[in-house]
Amino acid sequence: MPKPEQTLMEQIVNLCKRRGFVFPSAEIYSGLGGFYDYGPLGVLLKKNIEQLWWKTFVQERDDIMGIESTIVTKFDVLKASGHLENFTDPLVECKVCHERFRADHEEDIKAHRHQGKFTESRPFHTMFKTFVGVVEEDAATAFLRPENAQGMFTNFQNIVDTMRPKLPFGLAQIGRSFRNEITYRNFLFRQREFTIAELEYFVKPGDDEQVFEEWLNFMEKVLVERFGLSSSKLRRHEHPKDKLSHYSKRTVDFHYEYPWGWDELWGLANRRDYDLEQHEKATGKKMTYRDQETNESFRPYVIEPTGGIDRLLLAILCESYQSVSGGRSTTTESIKEEELVLKLPMQLAPYTIAVLPLSKKPELQKIAHDIASTLRNIWSVDYDEAASIGKRYRRQDEIGTPFCLTVDFDTVEGTKRPAGTVTVRNRDTMAQDNVAITELVEYFRTKLA
Amino acid sequence: MPKPEQTLMEQIVNLCKRRGFVFPSAEIYSGLGGFYDYGPLGVLLKKNIEQLWWKTFVQERDDIMGIESTIVTKFDVLKASGHLENFTDPLVECKVCHERFRADHEEDIKAHRHQGKFTESRPFHTMFKTFVGVVEEDAATAFLRPENAQGMFTNFQNIVDTMRPKLPFGLAQIGRSFRNEITYRNFLFRQREFTIAELEYFVKPGDDEQVFEEWLNFMEKVLVERFGLSSSKLRRHEHPKDKLSHYSKRTVDFHYEYPWGWDELWGLANRRDYDLEQHEKATGKKMTYRDQETNESFRPYVIEPTGGIDRLLLAILCESYQSVSGGRSTTTESIKEEELVLKLPMQLAPYTIAVLPLSKKPELQKIAHDIASTLRNIWSVDYDEAASIGKRYRRQDEIGTPFCLTVDFDTVEGTKRPAGTVTVRNRDTMAQDNVAITELVEYFRTKLA
Repeated sequence: MPKPEQTLMEQIVNLCKRRGFVFPSAEIYSGLGGFYDYGPLGVLLKKNIEQLWWKTFVQERDDIMGIESTIVTKFDVLKASGHLENFTDPLVECKVCHERFRADHEEDIKAHRHQGKFTESRPFHTMFKTFVGVVEEDAATAFLRPENAQGMFTNFQNIVDTMRPKLPFGLAQIGRSFRNEITYRNFLFRQREFTIAELEYFVKPGDDEQVFEEWLNFMEKVLVERFGLSSSKLRRHEHPKDKLSHYSKRTVDFHYEYPWGWDELWGLANRRDYDLEQHEKATGKKMTYRDQETNESFRPYVIEPTGGIDRLLLAILCESYQSVSGGRSTTTESIKEEELVLKLPMQLAPYTIAVLPLSKKPELQKIAHDIASTLRNIWSVDYDEAASIGKRYRRQDEIGTPFCLTVDFDTVEGTKRPAGTVTVRNRDTMAQDNVAITELVEYFRTKLA
Repeated sequence: MPKPEQTLMEQIVNLCKRRGFVFPSAEIYSGLGGFYDYGPLGVLLKKNIEQLWWKTFVQERDDIMGIESTIVTKFDVLKASGHLENFTDPLVECKVCHERFRADHEEDIKAHRHQGKFTESRPFHTMFKTFVGVVEEDAATAFLRPENAQGMFTNFQNIVDTMRPKLPFGLAQIGRSFRNEITYRNFLFRQREFTIAELEYFVKPGDDEQVFEEWLNFMEKVLVERFGLSSSKLRRHEHPKDKLSHYSKRTVDFHYEYPWGWDELWGLANRRDYDLEQHEKATGKKMTYRDQETNESFRPYVIEPTGGIDRLLLAILCESYQSVSGGRSTTTESIKEEELVLKLPMQLAPYTIAVLPLSKKPELQKIAHDIASTLRNIWSVDYDEAASIGKRYRRQDEIGTPFCLTVDFDTVEGTKRPAGTVTVRNRDTMAQDNVAITELVEYFRTKLA
């Protein structure tokens, strides 16, 4: 009998598989541990999250610029940054069955069936290695980046020279990163290939502690107001001084209350001038910023807000997932069975609008297709004509579609409503509006503003 | 003395570096051959291209769904697909200096300083290899995907089961792919890490040749009408039967007339049911589609339109790049020197609007900041107050900003124009409109519709 929180997690994994959000990578080949693919609905949700992050952290601000650096990273870069030496996890092995664990995942070890017979902990390197070059002898070792950050630090001087930004300024990047995790787990939470949104915010040394506080508040506000997470399910976790990463002066994580408990969602680190200094030492190239007014040159400090996109997506799914026992009544029929509603923020839903002709009558199909085609110029739209209207509403509720637009006989004949109108049903309030077809674009623009 | 076409290419590379479009990856470490990073303006241009591709091929159509599969790909997948055996380039080596060449790049070999002393051609494997797993002994070889396609084929049955699409339907994916090229060259054109937009369009066998023709026409229309390339700079290149890839029944490339000559931009391949059949053989799992009406089950054929995003970005830069000798006159000053204008399609420009206060007077700055802040809710906006207004116009022309919005003393005082209005200058026509600040959102919405 699973614990209640396992049940919820199992339900979410099941929904993700059943409705085309997430599939295990290479599933027909028994999968590849710690790797997942996003299906048609998952990729829409993920892209919407990425776009909202980008809008919030880059487009709407005048102090932050974007960048996209390569995944394959030169050996020298990760040597200088300290990753080659420090990017390890402590590994222990059961002497009986040779199963391996992260030494700091104490609960896993305690739960293991063989007790008291583990090897000494040793560091295990978690960067993926590859070789760049034409023939083996010439091959140069390179790594898949374990974080997006270094591509921003190595371009620091390029940015200062070409964009001439004023301090403080930030560089932002959304992209894949890779870690050969000893234990991947909790579905999308700890994967070996994942998407992170990272931001390096360069500030004058001395301003760093104040700016750190401002970012803490901004990040929390964004998680709640933009991404729809509950304040009560978020808390701050201050890293103890003796457990900070090799580059960090201070780190605070935002933990979210996932179905399995509180766990890391986003993080904020004060990296000081550690990375710029390391690259300056390794290359002999100055990594400084000259203040135009004081004419002073110095290496900026870096405040780094980091957000896991997959972790955020999973948190949003957990937050939005609602199971209504006994069902919700609709205007067309009552549903008595258990019903799922995914109350995603409107801007994030895979489909913004579903267009549903009441039946497969050609005159309704034609109007519905024309409407769908017009709305697709602006929004993500599903068209569904299979099964009863009640069943189709429930299918859209389950994947979080905020608006279901129905074309029925009144649209053509105008008996109970004026002809040329459709009904638009709101996922959350269940209210139905009558809207003229010619007014639809304006109607949705207002609703989604 | 460089040839004229080299000069244009050099100018474009120079612009990309100087204005923050593209930097060599790990440049402070002497770079990593065949790898480039996108800077702040490049990433905006690239994202706009990706979004327009997605809008055109996924959002606006009712027969195509998106997907995002992992970059790290299981060994078994690429073994079954034939890549392990076939994904090689012919390599020859100069016996004198050991420089290596692709045997089929005959011009490079002819131009080499040592003639007549090359090794026999041998196959060189161009997939990047890595290892997934906890310790070396257990390590499983995996590859960085050399194309996006296999992640779509391995999910074929998941898609059919969960999304229940009707044939014909497509799966689309934009993402990074990796090839350890023997010779990387022509800037963004042939990189070792690159972004491709791929689409697998599943059709009933027998319909494939007709659908192939339809896609050829659609792709050409999109390149010209959406991405702004000249028809005269595009031509079709039919692959000879004896040079087709191991999976292909027919392949046609779209070549673009780059500064160095005609070269591959996008491609269309008829992959038949090769991939689905291979995965079916390797896994024993059925890769079929059942037609609801005829109740017939069969493996679909696949028509595959592929587009290199970096190659398209480079083509768009080449197409848009205009150097006006003697300069263009503006209403505020005449410019006599050489002037660059990047005539990017409006939807693709890194910044849609530049907000320019005529001077650094606080009352102008305040209004300009407020306008920028409002417009940033919808569009990508630059704010620039440094240097003369003429110089700032030229800076925006150079990076392709379609609209320059100027806040001047008339905005405050309303002497020559009504107070509360600004001027908006069109990059291409140089025409200036007077627009009320309260009407700006509607003005740009109309211009950009």
